[in-house]
Amino acid sequence: MRIGELARRGGVPVGTVKYYLREGLLPPGELTSATQARYDERHVERLNLVKALVGVGGLSIAATGDVLRAIEKPPPTVHELLGIACSALGPDAPEADPDALARARALIERWGWGLHPDTPLDQLAAALPAAEMVGVPDLDATLDRYAALMAELARGDIDEVPIDNPAETVRFVVTAMVLLEPLLLAMRRLAQQAASARRFGG
Amino acid sequence: MRIGELARRGGVPVGTVKYYLREGLLPPGELTSATQARYDERHVERLNLVKALVGVGGLSIAATGDVLRAIEKPPPTVHELLGIACSALGPDAPEADPDALARARALIERWGWGLHPDTPLDQLAAALPAAEMVGVPDLDATLDRYAALMAELARGDIDEVPIDNPAETVRFVVTAMVLLEPLLLAMRRLAQQAASARRFGG
Repeated sequence: MRIGELARRGGVPVGTVKYYLREGLLPPGELTSATQARYDERHVERLNLVKALVGVGGLSIAATGDVLRAIEKPPPTVHELLGIACSALGPDAPEADPDALARARALIERWGWGLHPDTPLDQLAAALPAAEMVGVPDLDATLDRYAALMAELARGDIDEVPIDNPAETVRFVVTAMVLLEPLLLAMRRLAQQAASARRFGG
Repeated sequence: MRIGELARRGGVPVGTVKYYLREGLLPPGELTSATQARYDERHVERLNLVKALVGVGGLSIAATGDVLRAIEKPPPTVHELLGIACSALGPDAPEADPDALARARALIERWGWGLHPDTPLDQLAAALPAAEMVGVPDLDATLDRYAALMAELARGDIDEVPIDNPAETVRFVVTAMVLLEPLLLAMRRLAQQAASARRFGG
């Protein structure tokens, strides 16, 4: 198909397709003349993935490139692969003070998550002082409650990962990390509204 | 205390305090001369809240103002109050097509969340096509699994809300909505890494 048809199939303007081609987010088409190229179904699939990562996932063009490269040429360990997905997801955690970092480390230990020692805990550490400001009656109990639910969620996600084809495994793990997050937040916000309405009246 | 002491207590530069004062995120101090004002503990508390909403919560200055106004002068219904917190949390959902919106409405119905009919479902609707791209074996089952966990999380959050003092109830509900979200995401990302390491090796 020509570039116009590719754009139509992806539901984006031709200019957006050209931009993604220039940025290397889409592989080049097969040249059919000096100024025209032909694209195929793999381009449509890739365009839809880029659109989802940038649009709903909220990733920058640079972060999208990192994620796509990780999918195409996976780093040697799952730890590194997920590290790339997590960095892409950013935003960069605000600087966490050493006390908060030590606290985050102690929590991970208590939850028995057995993380790679290099796993950055800055995001969790930065979220802790903010969580304190809510003034929950027992923050440690709330943290444990959240951790148990997130561990259950992650177990379910990882159980669904297909393992027959390594490339597909990688694509699945990374896209689940990035693309299910907006879903989770949308659901949490709606669930809170439902629970509030139930307790306090509409 | 003077403005310098307030800034020190909040761990921000004096310029930031002045900016928050100008934007109305901090109430003015009590004037002690034409150029000096005195601040008290309520300013420290408010400064820490603004810092958390802007920093970890990632809210814009305008959205922070909306949230603070909702805390100070709550709208008449919990539905409107949470609506303000949700809008502040943005980002604005990408335009959702009518099919996705109908699907979101059907899901909410199936989960029995009994939401106010005006509750915007755009964010959920926009997240659905992106979730489809992950290629989970049975998306409906995954959505139900997420919904059950988010409903449980929300029930726990709402159970913790103090109800003796209406102003405190409002402050709690809104800050829990905004400030526990970064915590949740940080935990989900770490939990996924832990679960992946367990299944696929570190």
